[in-house]
Amino acid sequence: MISRTLLVSRLTVSYDGSPFAGWAVQPGERTVEGELAAALATVLREPVELTAAGRTDRGVHALGQVVSYTGPLPALRSVNAVLPPEIAVLAAEAAPPGFSARHDARSRSYRYRVLARRQPSPFERGRALWYPYRIDEAALHACAAALPGRHDFTAFTPAGGYHRHFERHVLHAGWERRGDVLELSIEADSFLRQMNRVLVGTMLEVANGRRDVEQFASLLQGCPRPDAGRTAPAHGLYLASVRY
Amino acid sequence: MISRTLLVSRLTVSYDGSPFAGWAVQPGERTVEGELAAALATVLREPVELTAAGRTDRGVHALGQVVSYTGPLPALRSVNAVLPPEIAVLAAEAAPPGFSARHDARSRSYRYRVLARRQPSPFERGRALWYPYRIDEAALHACAAALPGRHDFTAFTPAGGYHRHFERHVLHAGWERRGDVLELSIEADSFLRQMNRVLVGTMLEVANGRRDVEQFASLLQGCPRPDAGRTAPAHGLYLASVRY
Repeated sequence: MISRTLLVSRLTVSYDGSPFAGWAVQPGERTVEGELAAALATVLREPVELTAAGRTDRGVHALGQVVSYTGPLPALRSVNAVLPPEIAVLAAEAAPPGFSARHDARSRSYRYRVLARRQPSPFERGRALWYPYRIDEAALHACAAALPGRHDFTAFTPAGGYHRHFERHVLHAGWERRGDVLELSIEADSFLRQMNRVLVGTMLEVANGRRDVEQFASLLQGCPRPDAGRTAPAHGLYLASVRY
Repeated sequence: MISRTLLVSRLTVSYDGSPFAGWAVQPGERTVEGELAAALATVLREPVELTAAGRTDRGVHALGQVVSYTGPLPALRSVNAVLPPEIAVLAAEAAPPGFSARHDARSRSYRYRVLARRQPSPFERGRALWYPYRIDEAALHACAAALPGRHDFTAFTPAGGYHRHFERHVLHAGWERRGDVLELSIEADSFLRQMNRVLVGTMLEVANGRRDVEQFASLLQGCPRPDAGRTAPAHGLYLASVRY
């Protein structure tokens, strides 16, 4: 029994965030952590405590969330049969002793999807921000080009004491067009709360002609939150992958 | 008033078929035709009678259904604001007098999407058939190669008197892989009821090693329905486009 409890398992998890109050367990709310912990407890016949690489907010999706816990590996078929259809475990592997999906992560990659066309799409509903307004794509590219490097992202997270340190290191950022969808890919060591959503909201204001790129770039020096733009909705955001 | 009622309007419509009992109005059921007719009546302030290029079955999706009616063009923004989010009108244009979306169609193109991997996907749920079994892709290609031309598709539609003529002319058919999704594209002058779904169900039996390609090809000579395979589910099927 003792050696068994030292096993660390690592799961790669995908979920449609629409019906969930985010990753983290909250009393009285349906959460991804709550559903996954319950499914694993059923399959493993023991309770496990989960650690996620990214504590995604209400409505945010994941393509490749990484989760660790001390306990044995589940059979994927069994755990997926028990999980609600909005959550799927894509891979399960043994991790080194002491592995933490959160603390050992070197970087996280997120995507934000914008449906940039006049008419809505039944198939992008809840999966991309529908933005039927003017978008200057060159301005989006210029904003993304300002992001790599170490910056103070105070302007891009709600004021109010959730974080103590506001510097983050962006490793990569770029917009790409796929049909009618503009997709931001951004990789950083870690992200402040709502940072991606405020970045996207502010970049769209630049692309719409309501700010200029220089003003956007100047926000990366620790300006207060009100200087940045609106928070883009959660349903366009995806935790894409985690690097260790 | 007289000249106004002679206007023919042509709409391109996309819908997520999941919540609907198909295209055609049925008493007591929620249908795409019913929702679209109600939205147009609200916006145009007059009732219109709709004709669709393809009368899609319960649960079947559309990327580019074409619909015609005698009556004025709607403002897209208004009609999309009234429609439920599972339906969107992508384009509206004036059509020549007497135009019928159904009778003037030269061909219809459908797609069928198969998620070919071991684990399910929260994002393909209701949008692709999840097929976690062995698939020989070369066998799929060989089946598709047998389809172009004029054949008797009696084996690929339910027996029971819905159709009188069973020959259809397939103009193009091919499978393509996009990531974990295998997608059939098929274009024909018109399709028998459930023809695409029985074709896919039978092709998957070939790809799974339960039939051979020659047997599949021989079904195209007017064999009875029981000789073909199972009907693949509706939720993988999309009416993609219509040619005039």
